[in-house]
Amino acid sequence: MSNVPTDIEISQKAKMIPIQDIASKVGLSAENLEMYGKYKAKLSYDLLNSLEGKKEGKLILVTAINPTPAGEGKSTVTVGLGDAFQKVGYKTMIALREPSLGPTMGIKGGATGGGYAQVVPMDEINLHFTGDLHAITTANNALSALIDNHIHQGNTLSIDPRRVLWKRVVDLNDRALRNVLVGLGGPIQGVPREDGFDITVASEIMAILCLAKNLKDLKQRISNIVIGYTYEREVVKVKDLGVEGALTLLLKDALKPNLVQTLEGTPTLIHGGPFANIAHGCNSVIATKTALSLADVVVTEAGFGADLGAEKFLNIKTRITETNPSAVVVVATIRALKMHGGVKKDSLKEENIDALQTGLMNLAKHVENVQSFGIEPVVALNKFIFDTPEEVSVVKSWCENNGVRFALTEVWEKGGAGGEELVKQIIPLLKKDCSFTHTYDVSDSLQTKMEKIAKNIYGAKGVEFTSKAKKQLVECERQGYGIFPVCMAKTPVSLSDDPTKIGRPTDFVITVRELRPKVGAGFVVALTGDVMTMPGLPKQPAALKMDVDENGNAMGLF
Amino acid sequence: MSNVPTDIEISQKAKMIPIQDIASKVGLSAENLEMYGKYKAKLSYDLLNSLEGKKEGKLILVTAINPTPAGEGKSTVTVGLGDAFQKVGYKTMIALREPSLGPTMGIKGGATGGGYAQVVPMDEINLHFTGDLHAITTANNALSALIDNHIHQGNTLSIDPRRVLWKRVVDLNDRALRNVLVGLGGPIQGVPREDGFDITVASEIMAILCLAKNLKDLKQRISNIVIGYTYEREVVKVKDLGVEGALTLLLKDALKPNLVQTLEGTPTLIHGGPFANIAHGCNSVIATKTALSLADVVVTEAGFGADLGAEKFLNIKTRITETNPSAVVVVATIRALKMHGGVKKDSLKEENIDALQTGLMNLAKHVENVQSFGIEPVVALNKFIFDTPEEVSVVKSWCENNGVRFALTEVWEKGGAGGEELVKQIIPLLKKDCSFTHTYDVSDSLQTKMEKIAKNIYGAKGVEFTSKAKKQLVECERQGYGIFPVCMAKTPVSLSDDPTKIGRPTDFVITVRELRPKVGAGFVVALTGDVMTMPGLPKQPAALKMDVDENGNAMGLF
Repeated sequence: MSNVPTDIEISQKAKMIPIQDIASKVGLSAENLEMYGKYKAKLSYDLLNSLEGKKEGKLILVTAINPTPAGEGKSTVTVGLGDAFQKVGYKTMIALREPSLGPTMGIKGGATGGGYAQVVPMDEINLHFTGDLHAITTANNALSALIDNHIHQGNTLSIDPRRVLWKRVVDLNDRALRNVLVGLGGPIQGVPREDGFDITVASEIMAILCLAKNLKDLKQRISNIVIGYTYEREVVKVKDLGVEGALTLLLKDALKPNLVQTLEGTPTLIHGGPFANIAHGCNSVIATKTALSLADVVVTEAGFGADLGAEKFLNIKTRITETNPSAVVVVATIRALKMHGGVKKDSLKEENIDALQTGLMNLAKHVENVQSFGIEPVVALNKFIFDTPEEVSVVKSWCENNGVRFALTEVWEKGGAGGEELVKQIIPLLKKDCSFTHTYDVSDSLQTKMEKIAKNIYGAKGVEFTSKAKKQLVECERQGYGIFPVCMAKTPVSLSDDPTKIGRPTDFVITVRELRPKVGAGFVVALTGDVMTMPGLPKQPAALKMDVDENGNAMGLF
Repeated sequence: MSNVPTDIEISQKAKMIPIQDIASKVGLSAENLEMYGKYKAKLSYDLLNSLEGKKEGKLILVTAINPTPAGEGKSTVTVGLGDAFQKVGYKTMIALREPSLGPTMGIKGGATGGGYAQVVPMDEINLHFTGDLHAITTANNALSALIDNHIHQGNTLSIDPRRVLWKRVVDLNDRALRNVLVGLGGPIQGVPREDGFDITVASEIMAILCLAKNLKDLKQRISNIVIGYTYEREVVKVKDLGVEGALTLLLKDALKPNLVQTLEGTPTLIHGGPFANIAHGCNSVIATKTALSLADVVVTEAGFGADLGAEKFLNIKTRITETNPSAVVVVATIRALKMHGGVKKDSLKEENIDALQTGLMNLAKHVENVQSFGIEPVVALNKFIFDTPEEVSVVKSWCENNGVRFALTEVWEKGGAGGEELVKQIIPLLKKDCSFTHTYDVSDSLQTKMEKIAKNIYGAKGVEFTSKAKKQLVECERQGYGIFPVCMAKTPVSLSDDPTKIGRPTDFVITVRELRPKVGAGFVVALTGDVMTMPGLPKQPAALKMDVDENGNAMGLF
């Protein structure tokens, strides 16, 4: 394992296959592709429209335990699993989220996997890719400019500048933009008001792009975005401004899924990447549906642990795709499990069976959660170099004792060959029907939905609402938003809403402090604890190491 | 003329040729191209590096009289002239600027020409195109985020938050962002300070991208950008932050020229588009040099009238390209000349010989200015439907009486066929050497450079400096910026710095109120009057009419 080169070294040495040849593996011709260089392509609307109603393949969702600083390698396992399915002869596609430039420039980036389980061209995917995030940024900020212009030019809609909900975005980590005053400088410079910038992946437009079935649906959802309130406290939507056509036009190419390849040439769609806290954290519905129409097996992932991304995949996204996963893979590492058992980061290399046993309880809860949806989980233990045989056997035994499917994966070191054991565990699940069930019904009240998620997924005793949230609950039901799923915004690092409670916390209550209806996306966000919608840069940003040579080759990306 | 369909109708009905076939007209193979769909491509670094030192074709610069609300059609003539040269058998390329989304969403967009003299695909070029402007926006704002992060994380460079010169940008018209306060919300949200947003095309990074010879030069220039001052009033540059590598990496694809085609299949590079007031207003040096290496005749344009864009093309850009135009076309219309003669916009359809005679003096000055560079001008009268034969003959006679080459162009109605008369006037100029001379020497002091431009190009009596500008003049010379060309920021609608003075004003003085050294770009901006670096949206933005159909076809773009 120690002689594996760095991710970017592996990626840049990779012999990529022309994207037309990758496309032909799933029956696509050059006509279906809009090329972005030799190794990236968007799929045309002609193709997308022709796939409607086609028989679909089987879906595998990859999720994880609560993330720790030790890393779990969820994307790596997703890519490796796709490669493994291709290797044993299945017509396979992978569907991933698009990386945001903010984290890439900040700490380290990318949702492109690692080692020999990577998606390429890694540097381009992690930089501007095909421009989807820039299009979303532009559409988001065009709406802001149009709102401020409307207020400035007479404000016939009577928009209250103190109650504009719509924020601006940049695809960067930029804490100085979290809270800003705009419109300063006198009467010809606009109307002063408080505003703020989120990171682009937190934009409701990103969530909408990922949930829209087609351009028409995209425009419909955009027209329903609530941008703020009038002085009379009436809701103001995008359609009141009449700019849904222009915003949709700005997104017409961004809505098309992007085709790339893994190091082993597995066709991969990378498309959409909403936050898994403030939004639902899954790649686009269009990409997932397209992959299912083209391939027999589709491997996808959802953000953070199974309590966040997978919960939203299963309770929000499946209501639109109308396709549920046949299997859910729960990724864990010995290192991360030991952290959940109380080990500090600098002691992770030492064997610690006791801490591992304690930490396993985090895995246990995620396994139970997957089972609660009527889907059989498969535990994928993602092997690291310092893992001891004893530690591995502890996890394996726990799975055996609890009747849970288990597989050791070594995809980081071996690519698809390291995922064959995992494939063997999954194949039986693809052949049987599962009795999929949601955590809540859409007809449940918003409060009941939150309580069911908190009790059945997080393991909480119940939900408390701040007085602000209580008022908003009444207002949301009054506005008719009670029909929407709930999108919980919670710390990813704990099953509870308290980031210090690792492992499997018990005897806790979830506090909902604010509700934010996202009428365009079609869910109500429930904020618990502090939720970050604009990250900051660290003291030594990754940008300091980045460079490019005279022929345009990226350096220092990872 | 009246039965010519709208621009977007013509554009969408156009039978485009695959871009590889367009490329092959100038000897390029598929290997040299990085495709963006079927009809757009970037040129590879391998190709660009291989062209260094190659024999160059002849350059024709298209400029205009001072712009009026009547429109002159400079881009249309540029495209039509290129088509006309191709039509008569020359190996021809056109080199244009990239449009900004701000004006497209605001009033009307595009630098893609009109009628039957257009560049296509018009909708894509006017929307996100190949993402160059988004890359520039991102690099610009990444620098802002890195500056604010540096200040927040201990500020080891002692950057004075009150003296940060570097502003953020968006590629939109958004007046509410002109003056903002950032970093609000308490100690963990950054350090509060005043900031502002410019439109992306006003970013120094845009100017740098357009002046850089290659990636190495780009990085060098970026490293020299002055971002602000320390508490001790020492200059702080990008290289002090150590992020020039990361910013250059973000621009590695944006630096490659974009190949598209005209309606008649003339190969066209559209690349870079800096403001012609705060910056030099020309397409990129790389695109111009590349076109000259590939074609025998290259037609290009510069922003606004000959007093702004062309002056900067000839005094700033040619010092880097080391190639001067063999001919300069000065575009005028009867309508615009009548406006310079005092006619109001709603009376332009009526014949008015007196006003035309008066307005001709504006054309006369631009003709003289071109001659002052040692280049022979050609007047292109861009025909409109309401022009009377008597009016046309007034302009023609004036040219004949003054020994100035004249051509009537009908490219809007007829495409390249409407530009053959103009081609005939230009061809003799391509065969003779001109004795090109700059308006000033680089060894002149900054004050002398400004005085020479004001007197010899604008026709002013002299230059006055505000007390602020006087101090800055001393400081600029002290810092060693005296070696740079001067980039005048002046109203485009008058030869003077007073926008109400149309025609050919005399007896006026230019007031320089501020100097802004752009050390990365390599020029010193001299601000006269009020210069807009962030436009606002009108009361009825063009965005209200934009839409897209279910197959992704743009509607209402023009």
